[in-house]
Amino acid sequence: MKLLTTEQFFTEKQNQTDQTDYRNVDVSVLEIIADVQKSGDDALLRLTEKFDGVLLDQLTVSEEEFWEAEKSVSQEFKRAIRTAKENITAFHANQTEQSWFMNQTDGITLGQKVTAIERVGVYIPGGKASYPSSVLMNVIPAKLAGVEEIIITTPPNSDGKVNPYVLLAAKEAGVKAVYKVGGAQAIAALAYGTETIQKVFKIVGPGNAYVARAKKWVFGDVAIDMIAGPSEICIVADDTAPPRFVAADLLSQAEHDEDARPILITTSEKMAEAVQEAVAQQTEQLERKAIIKESLANNGRIIFAETLSEAFDTANKIAPEHLQLMIREPFENLANITNAGAIFLGHYSPEPLGDYAAGPNHTLPTSGTAAFSSPLGVYDFVKKSSVIHYPNQALDRISRDIITLANAEGLSAHSQSIQIRKDEQDDA
Amino acid sequence: MKLLTTEQFFTEKQNQTDQTDYRNVDVSVLEIIADVQKSGDDALLRLTEKFDGVLLDQLTVSEEEFWEAEKSVSQEFKRAIRTAKENITAFHANQTEQSWFMNQTDGITLGQKVTAIERVGVYIPGGKASYPSSVLMNVIPAKLAGVEEIIITTPPNSDGKVNPYVLLAAKEAGVKAVYKVGGAQAIAALAYGTETIQKVFKIVGPGNAYVARAKKWVFGDVAIDMIAGPSEICIVADDTAPPRFVAADLLSQAEHDEDARPILITTSEKMAEAVQEAVAQQTEQLERKAIIKESLANNGRIIFAETLSEAFDTANKIAPEHLQLMIREPFENLANITNAGAIFLGHYSPEPLGDYAAGPNHTLPTSGTAAFSSPLGVYDFVKKSSVIHYPNQALDRISRDIITLANAEGLSAHSQSIQIRKDEQDDA
Repeated sequence: MKLLTTEQFFTEKQNQTDQTDYRNVDVSVLEIIADVQKSGDDALLRLTEKFDGVLLDQLTVSEEEFWEAEKSVSQEFKRAIRTAKENITAFHANQTEQSWFMNQTDGITLGQKVTAIERVGVYIPGGKASYPSSVLMNVIPAKLAGVEEIIITTPPNSDGKVNPYVLLAAKEAGVKAVYKVGGAQAIAALAYGTETIQKVFKIVGPGNAYVARAKKWVFGDVAIDMIAGPSEICIVADDTAPPRFVAADLLSQAEHDEDARPILITTSEKMAEAVQEAVAQQTEQLERKAIIKESLANNGRIIFAETLSEAFDTANKIAPEHLQLMIREPFENLANITNAGAIFLGHYSPEPLGDYAAGPNHTLPTSGTAAFSSPLGVYDFVKKSSVIHYPNQALDRISRDIITLANAEGLSAHSQSIQIRKDEQDDA
Repeated sequence: MKLLTTEQFFTEKQNQTDQTDYRNVDVSVLEIIADVQKSGDDALLRLTEKFDGVLLDQLTVSEEEFWEAEKSVSQEFKRAIRTAKENITAFHANQTEQSWFMNQTDGITLGQKVTAIERVGVYIPGGKASYPSSVLMNVIPAKLAGVEEIIITTPPNSDGKVNPYVLLAAKEAGVKAVYKVGGAQAIAALAYGTETIQKVFKIVGPGNAYVARAKKWVFGDVAIDMIAGPSEICIVADDTAPPRFVAADLLSQAEHDEDARPILITTSEKMAEAVQEAVAQQTEQLERKAIIKESLANNGRIIFAETLSEAFDTANKIAPEHLQLMIREPFENLANITNAGAIFLGHYSPEPLGDYAAGPNHTLPTSGTAAFSSPLGVYDFVKKSSVIHYPNQALDRISRDIITLANAEGLSAHSQSIQIRKDEQDDA
């Protein structure tokens, strides 16, 4: 891992720009979207044959397939899913919002009505990996928000089946509508509807470049969660942190993909050295070491900070997806952290704990967007409506001010809507 | 106004698609953004000369200019701004959010930290109209959220001055940093920073097509509020609604622009006729009648519903920006409304009341996006960070489940980060 000062790190960062060219992806994605809009289920079946190599009879996962999945997974896995479900539910239950109102003088009532989004689509990637944790992290907050219809789409394997871990997680989370379709075609189906898949109002969940670009293109016609960038971890460590823990946590992010960003900020030169060594040692033992080595070479950085205060400032400027405070007094320093998706305190709260089972959501703002966005939560599955009631006397009393402002803005029909009611009062 | 059944309305709607072609706008916008990124203040001054017809000495509005504005506006206007400020503050104060934490067994602490976005930019349009109300509606929630730095940009007039109403509203709202720059160049400056204007993390506020497209292009590098579509009003009226009130309220939306959408849904044929007549009559008296007539012809619709229940369903499908319930029992029917930006109850709560001074925000989701988005609020100016602390015993207890899930997802470095801590416990 490259060792840098804070200044060197930010100079390097400033010179890096996202060079990814999505033009080719976009051409395919736009074609696929148009195809699904035009041909509905036919397009979905045809594109699934083309991209997933299987000609399906039907898109819908059957009751029987759910049962098969249930039988095929271990008790160990079921137990783990239930632990995760319980903890995720307990945490997110704190995020539910109430409608509220306030009564003012003159009989005025103002309020804010909170309503769940009616129908939501969750995209779960397929391929070699499986993402049961993403099912829980996306579905549970939607359920707690009160979303009535939750639809999952996920690509089938080449034998036409869906990953059993995903199906079990879906069942545990209480989702019955699972469709075998992936890629941009799944996003198009969720955004615009087909014979089998109903149009939703919001699409959430992770996915590859095609899924991400498709979400970007349908955005506006339907809401989306964030477009996630590469996974990031930033560990602030003083001399109390066990270097092998620090190394293991950096590597857990590095294994995600070649673009993952494992960053250590430390005030201890000894720590920097010891982590370097532990990283080198541990990497060799890991299954995904090819990916890890590339991610370390591309983005693995150790930043040496003069003081903890400089370390926190650096972390806030990076605004990382995951921030671990492996320092003497993590709670006491929480106030110094302003930008981070999730903050892990102490030596026994490693990032994978948050990925799976601690309770908070693992869908977090990446690429510095933690400076202005939040983890996925119950709040993402509701919307608010303002409520306004004025009785005639109350309107009469404020009418002069409204007319003044409307006239200042040159909107005389706005004035007129107030004046016409005032005239009635004045006549009475 | 065209009279339709519910079915006819939705058939017509389905056949309408947004045909607006932004390609020419986008070419200019992207050039402007690149120019500002490269040349900073120089580009801003040059582009302001080009588009606003004035060569400025400096971009910053001076203390003296604030004083001049203060002197030039009427007491009447100041009073109105203060009333509005007071009501907007009282309403939005209910939206402030608390950080929270929960302690679980085993010494576990989980929480959600709420932090204000550090720096926010507010765009206020210029030109012939002036938008003091937009200043209040965008700045007050940001202030309540705790945003430390709020920056306003607004285009200067051809004499190099900024609208005094806007300056007065800015001063009342507590914003001192106002810059004389508009259009895509203002958005670029806010998104990327120049010598004079600091980069912000979120840009809010209304604007023309250039501003809107620029916001769309910088989105991701910086957060934005919504891209607003044409203004909409939907009035559900039974036979208790005074037709001249209904007509005046429809017209108050129609005057915004030719694309504004005034829609009446009524269960009463008599009402439909009476409103038609009142609309025709009142239109002739209004200053902006040319715009109004076009908006009525393009998008003015009266939908006849068999029952109130059908009327509510129709309103929910439209998901209008503004919804007025001018019916016998508006409060009793609030539960039937699921999709609307703002809901106005009764005959004396016309939409312009909400635009200026009732208290709720006037920045509302348009074009059916109320099905999945909310009014601008304090919640738009904060972000959340999850907080996770597990002591070693607690991690040990859950470690088996995490390792199971990580292995099911094929992420062995994730397992390793947990295992390395478990091993230490087991050795102890």
